[in-house]
Amino acid sequence: MTSLKDHSETQSGAGSDRIVISVDAMGGDRGPAAVVAGIARSAQKNPTLDFILHGPEPELKKLVQKRRALDGRCEIRSAQGVVSMEDKPSQVMRNGKGTSMWSALESVKNKEATVAVSCGNTGALMALSMIRLRKLPGVNRPAIAILWPSRNPQGFNVMLDVGADIRADAKDLLQYALMGTSYARNGLDLKRPRVGLLNVGTEQNKGFPELKEAYDLIEANAERAEFEFVGYVEGGDIPGKRCDVIVTDGFTGNIALKTGEGTAKLIGDHLKGAFTYSMLARLAGLMAMSPLKRFQKKVDPRRVNGGVFLGLNGTVVKSHGSADETGVSAAVKLAYELANAGFADRLAARVASATELALNDAAENRETQDKSKT
Amino acid sequence: MTSLKDHSETQSGAGSDRIVISVDAMGGDRGPAAVVAGIARSAQKNPTLDFILHGPEPELKKLVQKRRALDGRCEIRSAQGVVSMEDKPSQVMRNGKGTSMWSALESVKNKEATVAVSCGNTGALMALSMIRLRKLPGVNRPAIAILWPSRNPQGFNVMLDVGADIRADAKDLLQYALMGTSYARNGLDLKRPRVGLLNVGTEQNKGFPELKEAYDLIEANAERAEFEFVGYVEGGDIPGKRCDVIVTDGFTGNIALKTGEGTAKLIGDHLKGAFTYSMLARLAGLMAMSPLKRFQKKVDPRRVNGGVFLGLNGTVVKSHGSADETGVSAAVKLAYELANAGFADRLAARVASATELALNDAAENRETQDKSKT
Repeated sequence: MTSLKDHSETQSGAGSDRIVISVDAMGGDRGPAAVVAGIARSAQKNPTLDFILHGPEPELKKLVQKRRALDGRCEIRSAQGVVSMEDKPSQVMRNGKGTSMWSALESVKNKEATVAVSCGNTGALMALSMIRLRKLPGVNRPAIAILWPSRNPQGFNVMLDVGADIRADAKDLLQYALMGTSYARNGLDLKRPRVGLLNVGTEQNKGFPELKEAYDLIEANAERAEFEFVGYVEGGDIPGKRCDVIVTDGFTGNIALKTGEGTAKLIGDHLKGAFTYSMLARLAGLMAMSPLKRFQKKVDPRRVNGGVFLGLNGTVVKSHGSADETGVSAAVKLAYELANAGFADRLAARVASATELALNDAAENRETQDKSKT
Repeated sequence: MTSLKDHSETQSGAGSDRIVISVDAMGGDRGPAAVVAGIARSAQKNPTLDFILHGPEPELKKLVQKRRALDGRCEIRSAQGVVSMEDKPSQVMRNGKGTSMWSALESVKNKEATVAVSCGNTGALMALSMIRLRKLPGVNRPAIAILWPSRNPQGFNVMLDVGADIRADAKDLLQYALMGTSYARNGLDLKRPRVGLLNVGTEQNKGFPELKEAYDLIEANAERAEFEFVGYVEGGDIPGKRCDVIVTDGFTGNIALKTGEGTAKLIGDHLKGAFTYSMLARLAGLMAMSPLKRFQKKVDPRRVNGGVFLGLNGTVVKSHGSADETGVSAAVKLAYELANAGFADRLAARVASATELALNDAAENRETQDKSKT
């Protein structure tokens, strides 16, 4: 955080806290133009934001110079290599050095920036993040958390893991609960988040034995970790109001996420189709423009863009690969909010205290066992 | 089928094929009134339909007498017991005799009706169906298949299993592919359905080893079972157009189904909210009524109501527990279409031929092995 403060002092002087976001300009489906347009929009909306932009310098320079909002607020770091959507994480781990993705993470590692944002290949980004930023002590599997539009007053629920790892045992799921509640506290401003464990029914006897083990573990840790455990929840509760944080393994979470996105997109297209069906329907669509826009703003997936990697030394926001200007700007907004809340340090503190508690528990158990032996 | 034909001859005479559906009047969230209203609507729309209705006779008699459409077309079978949503399948298996659900299945078992429809407890209905109708020879785990609104020309995709069993090994998943394509042929009129295996990515190296095993098994059987295998598909493909049949285990399928339903419902509520936000918005809503109705008809989940139990000696349609008149009528329509297509016999034939092929394969393998020994 020191270098960030230094940065803010040299740049703005007036003592206002400036936030620096490191942005991978490459790897998204729409190329660097969409990324630069997105960060320019964010810069315009938020005067305390600065950027370090990673990618091929001449190309980026041209794009950035066109945007007045980025004037003096966007440093370009030259990186020639690009991680493509087709690259396998294992390849990228070996040959990723020199790519814009690697470079973007490096700025977070060196504490020049607080959060890194990339539209690139998810698997590769997670693999590089693990190498460059390293896992937090006590975290076995990092997770990707997303915000899901919901019926709760805060408008969103947190769901994790949505695809960092296909497997998760009971301890991992507890870890996800801890990290997810930390995210909900900082990202959604909830003091005592309610956690649900995703299953195929709410009764205690439902699901796999591994899930029951996770149930018991999460329940046992709820009070001292200051969250409420509501027990098992179902797919319908992900956009619902029974809980604020939905915990599941990365296989189930990824399929739920993509099913939800696909269903929302199909419905949106049907709605569009209904209003272009005939001349009269088009006219009705014009009349209904304002309510439809209000509706779209509520459910537009581009406005809730950004999976957050949790469990690393530093925060990484993964934007949708197909993000346009609006999408990139939403991911930057999320990055800004997490940076502003000091999320990385708070999450690390939470995980550290949980690990400590677990160690104490283990020590106590040993003591009790020792006593019972004597 | 004989008794069904007899029935049609005695009732309508004119040689037209009458279809008898066995309906459990109890166990739904809205009680028997919604069920009777639903079957009455179906009776009105479809003059070749007859019903056997199961539940407490005096109550049902009163409800049926009010509906002219059911006049002479709905036989009531008295059953006092009701399976509630809270009853555990294991309890129902022991004490289910005498319930309306048991009685409804009995009519299919006795070939008085072609398909049974129930709005009751899914787990109990599956458990009773397994006891009363028994699994088809060669089927290890029966599955529940649903129709999912999609971008395909037929308007729907088939997904299974959505919750009969949380587990499925590679052989079960192959069986699901066979049963799902049979359903797609009869329910959606597709000659050569395209099958996808649900995973977290489309690359061959994604997912669990068990999935790769299923991949190979399904691929190896595609040609002779007359379907096309498109490989791995993702959550976004469930409402998409990459395939017609999505195969997955009942844990993942159930969560995907409920996530999709919940998301669709949230979006619908937001849309309603947008058009009641202000007086002007209400007015706009009135103007846009006809396109909105067209839209609603396309995505209304009540119009695609009914999970079909596959892999049993007889067809069972599980309607949503909260189904209203429209929902029940949709489930009956689905039951009618399957009955009319002779689905139960065709599915049994498919499964039998697949089992036979597998046995032949095994025999061939033994032969080859024996030869290589000599």
